[in-house]
Amino acid sequence: MVETRPKIRLHVDAALATGTELALSAGQAHYLRAVMRQAPGAAVRLFNGRDGEWRAELTRLGKRDAAVTVRERLRPQAVEADLWLLFAPLKRGPQELLVQKATELGVARLQPVVTRFTDAVRAKPERLQAIAIEAAEQCERLSVPELAPARPLADCLADWPAERALLFCDERGGTPLAALLQRSAPADGAAILVGPEGGFDDAERASLLASGFAEAVSLGPRTLRAETAAIAAIVLWQALAGDDRPPPSPAAG
Amino acid sequence: MVETRPKIRLHVDAALATGTELALSAGQAHYLRAVMRQAPGAAVRLFNGRDGEWRAELTRLGKRDAAVTVRERLRPQAVEADLWLLFAPLKRGPQELLVQKATELGVARLQPVVTRFTDAVRAKPERLQAIAIEAAEQCERLSVPELAPARPLADCLADWPAERALLFCDERGGTPLAALLQRSAPADGAAILVGPEGGFDDAERASLLASGFAEAVSLGPRTLRAETAAIAAIVLWQALAGDDRPPPSPAAG
Repeated sequence: MVETRPKIRLHVDAALATGTELALSAGQAHYLRAVMRQAPGAAVRLFNGRDGEWRAELTRLGKRDAAVTVRERLRPQAVEADLWLLFAPLKRGPQELLVQKATELGVARLQPVVTRFTDAVRAKPERLQAIAIEAAEQCERLSVPELAPARPLADCLADWPAERALLFCDERGGTPLAALLQRSAPADGAAILVGPEGGFDDAERASLLASGFAEAVSLGPRTLRAETAAIAAIVLWQALAGDDRPPPSPAAG
Repeated sequence: MVETRPKIRLHVDAALATGTELALSAGQAHYLRAVMRQAPGAAVRLFNGRDGEWRAELTRLGKRDAAVTVRERLRPQAVEADLWLLFAPLKRGPQELLVQKATELGVARLQPVVTRFTDAVRAKPERLQAIAIEAAEQCERLSVPELAPARPLADCLADWPAERALLFCDERGGTPLAALLQRSAPADGAAILVGPEGGFDDAERASLLASGFAEAVSLGPRTLRAETAAIAAIVLWQALAGDDRPPPSPAAG
């Protein structure tokens, strides 16, 4: 079953259903023809974040345009872990890495937040979106994370949904994240907040701690770069509270 | 206390003791002068992986040479988690990222292994060593991971220390790593093995499973790139069995 699935996997915006004919983008046409050396008749997989994963057949392939016909559904849309990542914009390399890895690790929503010590040129959203789409296509997930526009941290806190836990990685220390996740019942949704290299200022930390929904967490004895801290926190959350979490064993109650 | 520690932190090979005068490398001289714009009299921190962390004073700073005098010890050498990472060589970008992040996350030993589907130009060891040293200097750890010469996987398995658990990340599935680490008593030392993008071949998998010391582990429902899988496995091991692990609570026995 696994072996017969087409290797090429593309994200599209359009609705997917048997028999639908779709035009692909110029970039996708180039990728299929020049990079993957495909020809009409080739099979691909498609997903759009809503309708599951589908097998489709390449019916036209020009230099700048391509079309497919959708054949049958291979996987239904699955419920994915509801984890947001809030991050202070970083330099280009670390930020692109962060978007790629957060996508691969199943983050549902990427929210850049501007903090007092944020010190980075903001990337073009289109560039980050393209990185997220490519990572989603390669890692077999059925959705692309939502990339929200950058907002001041204070604005995010002002209209925060109070039932969503906000775990902020604090260089000054906090509850070890793994211990926190092991002892509390996994919530339905959560968010991880990673500050800039300079950390949070005192007022930001105070307003987080006073919010009622935020908790300072720590990630071990070493000083992690911002993107590493974000990746580590996502890995731990997915493994202990998210969709990597194994079903509870009967003995554990 | 934290505020008075010099920001600049350098790895050296020489023994460290009060009063010792040391010559720094040409690269360190350039870094101090041209990048960090330091002058004689500036304070730096030094570590060598054996003698803890020391405050030192910059006594000479030329274009290609520099010297320091070691003043007092700031931290004793600590026992660090005994985790090895075995990885099939990757393309340059992902491999350099892996060495940087594994160092930051506290891996003690980096062992490139050649497997059947390994398909990458091997990087120069000097280059990987430089990346590991820079990452160690920045993350506050007191050691630089050992970078072992590349070996065939079969040779590594042939003289493997049987008391060291070898957790291999298998794309075909295995025990979820977090669950495995949560239910078994943390061992003193372990190793994580990540294969190439093509995975392990059947003979490699069979010899791993027959070894008695290796266990197949999985890292969740998505398909992770090799370097992401390695990072995720290291994060989980450190948090649940390594030196990020919080002390056991009295209630847990």
